[in-house]
Amino acid sequence: MPDTVVSPPAPSPAPVIDCAAYCGGSRVADLGIDQIRPALSRDDQFVWLGLYEPEQDVLRQVQKQFGLHDLAIEDAYNAHQRPKLELYEDSLFVVLRTAHMSTSARHLEFGETHIFLGRNYLVTVRHGSLRSHIGVRQRCESTPHLLSKGPGYVLYALMDFVVDQYLPVVQQIEEEVEDLEDLIFGMSDTGDATSRIYQLKRELLSLRRAVTPLVEVCNRLMRFDLPHIPEDTRVYFRDVYDHIVRLNETIDAQRELLTTALEAHLSLMSHAQNEHMKRITAWAAMIAVPTMIAGIYGMNFKHMPELDWTLGYPVAIGLMLIAAALPYFIFKWKKWL
Amino acid sequence: MPDTVVSPPAPSPAPVIDCAAYCGGSRVADLGIDQIRPALSRDDQFVWLGLYEPEQDVLRQVQKQFGLHDLAIEDAYNAHQRPKLELYEDSLFVVLRTAHMSTSARHLEFGETHIFLGRNYLVTVRHGSLRSHIGVRQRCESTPHLLSKGPGYVLYALMDFVVDQYLPVVQQIEEEVEDLEDLIFGMSDTGDATSRIYQLKRELLSLRRAVTPLVEVCNRLMRFDLPHIPEDTRVYFRDVYDHIVRLNETIDAQRELLTTALEAHLSLMSHAQNEHMKRITAWAAMIAVPTMIAGIYGMNFKHMPELDWTLGYPVAIGLMLIAAALPYFIFKWKKWL
Amino acid sequence: MPDTVVSPPAPSPAPVIDCAAYCGGSRVADLGIDQIRPALSRDDQFVWLGLYEPEQDVLRQVQKQFGLHDLAIEDAYNAHQRPKLELYEDSLFVVLRTAHMSTSARHLEFGETHIFLGRNYLVTVRHGSLRSHIGVRQRCESTPHLLSKGPGYVLYALMDFVVDQYLPVVQQIEEEVEDLEDLIFGMSDTGDATSRIYQLKRELLSLRRAVTPLVEVCNRLMRFDLPHIPEDTRVYFRDVYDHIVRLNETIDAQRELLTTALEAHLSLMSHAQNEHMKRITAWAAMIAVPTMIAGIYGMNFKHMPELDWTLGYPVAIGLMLIAAALPYFIFKWKKWL
Amino acid sequence: MPDTVVSPPAPSPAPVIDCAAYCGGSRVADLGIDQIRPALSRDDQFVWLGLYEPEQDVLRQVQKQFGLHDLAIEDAYNAHQRPKLELYEDSLFVVLRTAHMSTSARHLEFGETHIFLGRNYLVTVRHGSLRSHIGVRQRCESTPHLLSKGPGYVLYALMDFVVDQYLPVVQQIEEEVEDLEDLIFGMSDTGDATSRIYQLKRELLSLRRAVTPLVEVCNRLMRFDLPHIPEDTRVYFRDVYDHIVRLNETIDAQRELLTTALEAHLSLMSHAQNEHMKRITAWAAMIAVPTMIAGIYGMNFKHMPELDWTLGYPVAIGLMLIAAALPYFIFKWKKWL
Amino acid sequence: MPDTVVSPPAPSPAPVIDCAAYCGGSRVADLGIDQIRPALSRDDQFVWLGLYEPEQDVLRQVQKQFGLHDLAIEDAYNAHQRPKLELYEDSLFVVLRTAHMSTSARHLEFGETHIFLGRNYLVTVRHGSLRSHIGVRQRCESTPHLLSKGPGYVLYALMDFVVDQYLPVVQQIEEEVEDLEDLIFGMSDTGDATSRIYQLKRELLSLRRAVTPLVEVCNRLMRFDLPHIPEDTRVYFRDVYDHIVRLNETIDAQRELLTTALEAHLSLMSHAQNEHMKRITAWAAMIAVPTMIAGIYGMNFKHMPELDWTLGYPVAIGLMLIAAALPYFIFKWKKWL
Repeated sequence: MPDTVVSPPAPSPAPVIDCAAYCGGSRVADLGIDQIRPALSRDDQFVWLGLYEPEQDVLRQVQKQFGLHDLAIEDAYNAHQRPKLELYEDSLFVVLRTAHMSTSARHLEFGETHIFLGRNYLVTVRHGSLRSHIGVRQRCESTPHLLSKGPGYVLYALMDFVVDQYLPVVQQIEEEVEDLEDLIFGMSDTGDATSRIYQLKRELLSLRRAVTPLVEVCNRLMRFDLPHIPEDTRVYFRDVYDHIVRLNETIDAQRELLTTALEAHLSLMSHAQNEHMKRITAWAAMIAVPTMIAGIYGMNFKHMPELDWTLGYPVAIGLMLIAAALPYFIFKWKKWL
Repeated sequence: MPDTVVSPPAPSPAPVIDCAAYCGGSRVADLGIDQIRPALSRDDQFVWLGLYEPEQDVLRQVQKQFGLHDLAIEDAYNAHQRPKLELYEDSLFVVLRTAHMSTSARHLEFGETHIFLGRNYLVTVRHGSLRSHIGVRQRCESTPHLLSKGPGYVLYALMDFVVDQYLPVVQQIEEEVEDLEDLIFGMSDTGDATSRIYQLKRELLSLRRAVTPLVEVCNRLMRFDLPHIPEDTRVYFRDVYDHIVRLNETIDAQRELLTTALEAHLSLMSHAQNEHMKRITAWAAMIAVPTMIAGIYGMNFKHMPELDWTLGYPVAIGLMLIAAALPYFIFKWKKWL
Repeated sequence: MPDTVVSPPAPSPAPVIDCAAYCGGSRVADLGIDQIRPALSRDDQFVWLGLYEPEQDVLRQVQKQFGLHDLAIEDAYNAHQRPKLELYEDSLFVVLRTAHMSTSARHLEFGETHIFLGRNYLVTVRHGSLRSHIGVRQRCESTPHLLSKGPGYVLYALMDFVVDQYLPVVQQIEEEVEDLEDLIFGMSDTGDATSRIYQLKRELLSLRRAVTPLVEVCNRLMRFDLPHIPEDTRVYFRDVYDHIVRLNETIDAQRELLTTALEAHLSLMSHAQNEHMKRITAWAAMIAVPTMIAGIYGMNFKHMPELDWTLGYPVAIGLMLIAAALPYFIFKWKKWL
Repeated sequence: MPDTVVSPPAPSPAPVIDCAAYCGGSRVADLGIDQIRPALSRDDQFVWLGLYEPEQDVLRQVQKQFGLHDLAIEDAYNAHQRPKLELYEDSLFVVLRTAHMSTSARHLEFGETHIFLGRNYLVTVRHGSLRSHIGVRQRCESTPHLLSKGPGYVLYALMDFVVDQYLPVVQQIEEEVEDLEDLIFGMSDTGDATSRIYQLKRELLSLRRAVTPLVEVCNRLMRFDLPHIPEDTRVYFRDVYDHIVRLNETIDAQRELLTTALEAHLSLMSHAQNEHMKRITAWAAMIAVPTMIAGIYGMNFKHMPELDWTLGYPVAIGLMLIAAALPYFIFKWKKWL
Repeated sequence: MPDTVVSPPAPSPAPVIDCAAYCGGSRVADLGIDQIRPALSRDDQFVWLGLYEPEQDVLRQVQKQFGLHDLAIEDAYNAHQRPKLELYEDSLFVVLRTAHMSTSARHLEFGETHIFLGRNYLVTVRHGSLRSHIGVRQRCESTPHLLSKGPGYVLYALMDFVVDQYLPVVQQIEEEVEDLEDLIFGMSDTGDATSRIYQLKRELLSLRRAVTPLVEVCNRLMRFDLPHIPEDTRVYFRDVYDHIVRLNETIDAQRELLTTALEAHLSLMSHAQNEHMKRITAWAAMIAVPTMIAGIYGMNFKHMPELDWTLGYPVAIGLMLIAAALPYFIFKWKKWL
């Protein structure tokens, strides 16, 4: 039964199995889970089995068929591993983390893919990620000359697929950082920029924890003499390695930018606030002298000649207007406002 | 006498000893402290002795029975060591730190476990930690095929037990960090968030000092050719290693988040404070002009025609209301408020 | 057809090809794309082909002529690679990033140069950069004794050319940082210094991501025994290496300075703002006492002897002047202003 | 002449010499400086010489007796070296820094100990430190079975002594950091907390520069095959190594805590200050409306019916009280205060 | 012609040459530039040539005489290199940066010294530094037993001389940092402390870029088997190495202190400013109530019994004095002031 692309609303797809034998780069047989062992006994072909969040008993069956190690099976069942490459006697065990932005609420989500690689088999156990590996299988089947390199090449195809999924995630974060910059330095309504910067930083930390261990995994695959990785596929892992290093650099650069952006944002926000405060205070200060003048002409001295002038009142009002305007111009001239 | 789970109120349990000989994965005899040496002379079995904060004379006896090194015994007596792995001629000496949250007051506490590992014995000396190793012993005894690998496997079981204790501690800290984030960015009453962030940072620093040296300890156990660690148990230490690295990464990520959270919190707190200040100042500023108007009509000029108007008084009051409301709307319009 | 220097307005020059064979340091023949293979068969000469943003079919032709690897050709077509050096069986593949300041708007732009190096050929694929390699070719052709060292020397000449382009970019940034310092510490109108500092930091991060990987590339070229790099050209790569390390150091120093400059700028800006605020508040505070005095003599008590004095009014005014001046001198004396 | 413990007031003790020959762990002879060479010629014993800030001519004599290297003697005379281990042909030269808190004024002071170690001699040159090595010598002499291991063991005893002196210093700093935390977060009078934090940071930087190089020194002593360090004393240097690493970790943790504490302190201090400012401003704001009301009833309009009411005056006073209390409750309700 | 000490006012001294042959540690002949080649042919002596900012033709002559590499000569002519050690076939090329504080304006200036070292020659090319190497030559000539070790020892003498020049520079910076600390924490007039801290940080960054590469240079000279460096001079380079490492540590410690000092200074400055602001505001707030009281007795109500009292006026004044003093004591009591 073929692995299908799972659409978001469908909650938990059955642990669909796509199990087939390949010989010389071509699919030669679809296998049931009990047909695996006979197929493995033939030297000229390899078996590729795909699982999605399997029950423990299915995993136990698979373990028996392929002779996998207890600890690796436990990891594959429990998930929540960090990306790693482990060598068990005669097989490789690779854990990858997948990432995607949930479309409904903008939110970063992680899945996991566990891969068992033996001389003539490859088993994938997928957890939580939305995108199935059916695309990888189709692409591999459409290039028999590459698929004929064996399961080591399929491992490359899967890693390439997983690493490529990080690109849009990182790009989306880069765009958000740029949006935030425009917001911050344009001082248009920054709303909850502080909390958004914090959120982005949190996401970058999660991403880095998923991507950084891959550098080491890839490094071992492209440099060291691991079993079941043909000499001529190492150059492909070097290609994946380059992508991972670039992702890593982008993530680190964005983190550093966010740190600076947060500092700048907080300061500019505080600066704008103080500027408003200053203007409000200046308003009150401008009114102080006119009020004093009114007070003066409200004094009850017997001998206050101005009070008897016909033009006393309008002159006083004029004086008050000047007394209000003067500090405004002084403040402006001194660049206090 | 079996090691028992010590409940918090019980202050200092006796240095209870659970000492037994194991052969082929099964417990074959409970031993008194003076029966150890004869048991050690038999090649087909190993002795597992558990101590809790022993007196110096008990330790001296144990040292004589097993032939342990002076410096290691001194360490085991004094405690306050950092986690380490040391090789003394014919035995390994491992120091681990245990951590748990005290339930009464939310407070991080550390204990220590010292382990001596020889060809056919394993001695544990536990300091301060609340949870005894009885669970480890029971689990080991229930899987004889694993216990039959010898004391090297018991060392793994103990390390796995100790490292697993860190998980709830780190998770609790992660939850507190998330609580603090909600508090900080929701601007609900943040109370003493500053001091709580500081406290969490202090705890993360302590945790890191307990966990980081374990990376090196585990690395040596899984990679190098140490005595008494069977070839086929190294894969188990690799499993512990993965857990430690994940703990380490989580701790570092939380520290970085806390640093950013503190910066954001302090700024948002200051921002809210200044906002209130601004509003209080605006209140005073709004009253300034009406007060001035009252002052004007309190002036004693002879010729002030308004004073004789019948509607002079209500008009002046109206003017004052407008003069108070106007700046409010100006401030709002200018987005100063 | 010779490669020409492209002036900024010209949007997309044709993938001009300058393809020639060199023998003993001299240009011996201009080649069409289909004449390459015969030329390659001669042991005493090498072919140097230059491309600018070629179409995929041109690249495919070139791949066939030189027998280049699929992955390298894909990289050269897609561009957006990080600088690297890769070894494919019998050829080297080098990716360099070029940088220049766009003259119209002060803005940092990056291009890419991909170089394939074989025993007797060198192919360059240029993307996006404004300055062609014609200068490199001319300089090489004018020093036949150096060009006769073969394509390894041409690789050096190209790297030297690319690295030299970074110098004016970094110098311009250094000058801007110094301008900003003068602005910040001279407290002349700092305008949008915050945003300019941020922008510079972003540019330095981009530059570093282009320059840092070159350290590793150069290190391998000068130290390890790579094919097609003659023993006596390694000393030249050491020269390029020195330049790169100096660039790197300058970039890091500027970043650190900018971090400090930002902190200082934000604080000085806030300090100046608060200083103005303080002066405005002092203005209002100075008016408070005179206003109170006016209020006092506006009171309606029957028995206020001063009110009947002839000089009462001028004395009151004098008192008010003193009451306004006194706090000013007190504030000055206390260094509050 | 025996080395004596120097009490603080005594300014510069004579370069007292305690020079003795040891054989099989026992002191066999006290030596004058001219008796050293004959003693050195005997294979079964070793010479231990202790100097305190010796004059240049004494050092020259010692150099001649033991055949020490010019550069090492120069270092030992000038002091102000960083901790290091150097190998001169047939001898080891070790420089250690000692630290103690001066009791009078709480102030961190450093001394230096230089140690020359040969096949059958050990020379110590002490600078500035208050505590002599007489305790070390006594402890060594009381354990002949250890002292019989030769001068390599004495080197361990000296390093252990020096490293142990750091413990109380670091603990005192830890306590001060905790005191400061209580002060900062209790907001009791923080006095000059800023300057104290800075001072502690400066001291931690000095300590780190004294302790960190010891990691490398100890590492070489416990790992590499150095002359005159018996195989079975390396395990002792491992013990010292553990202490140094713990000191180092504590110092780094305290530095990080201080950085966070400083940030928190400055913010809390500023927060408290602004809070006070806000309350003072609120005081003035509360008085604004009553003042305006007084102004209103001070207006001279002909037609102001309230003025003729019998209860006009008390009603106005009541109005003013309400006008003063109202904003107070509004500010409280809005949580501005 | 001997190299002379250049005094600051003399702008550009001629490229004075002090060229001499040494045999067995003694100066045996002063050489003209054309006498070098014959002198080099004698195996028992070596030539030491000193140049100061030579013209290109002089350098070309020197290159021909000693057979130096093109790239090294280019470096020596252009200067602006980072410190490095390069090995050209049969000669070493060392670049050092010299530093001194210009005496007129306190300002850090850098020079460069390029050294060519062959089997029997040493050429120095000095750029921009004020202090000539004549002192080094004199000191070398006065210790023939050391000079007889050959040009490798002269290289040590030169490096020691250059590194020793850094000491007063770093000490002066340390003193300035201490002065700044006194200023900052004494809160005496801090003037432009911010800009001075920034300037010091900039200088420390320059210094670090001059000193750090020397660690690697010295490391290679003291550890690896370089030509023309006699086995028994390596111990001297170890001495220089120690000095460089100490310089490096001091520079890093000062940078870290400055970062903390800047943070503390900015906060204390802001704290003082806000304190002043608070006092000014308190002044205005204290006047508010008396002003209100004056307003009350300025009201025109018919029935205000106090107005008719004989002591009404003085009682009102007394009330106002109390109303002004009361908030002052309240603010003091609440510790708002």
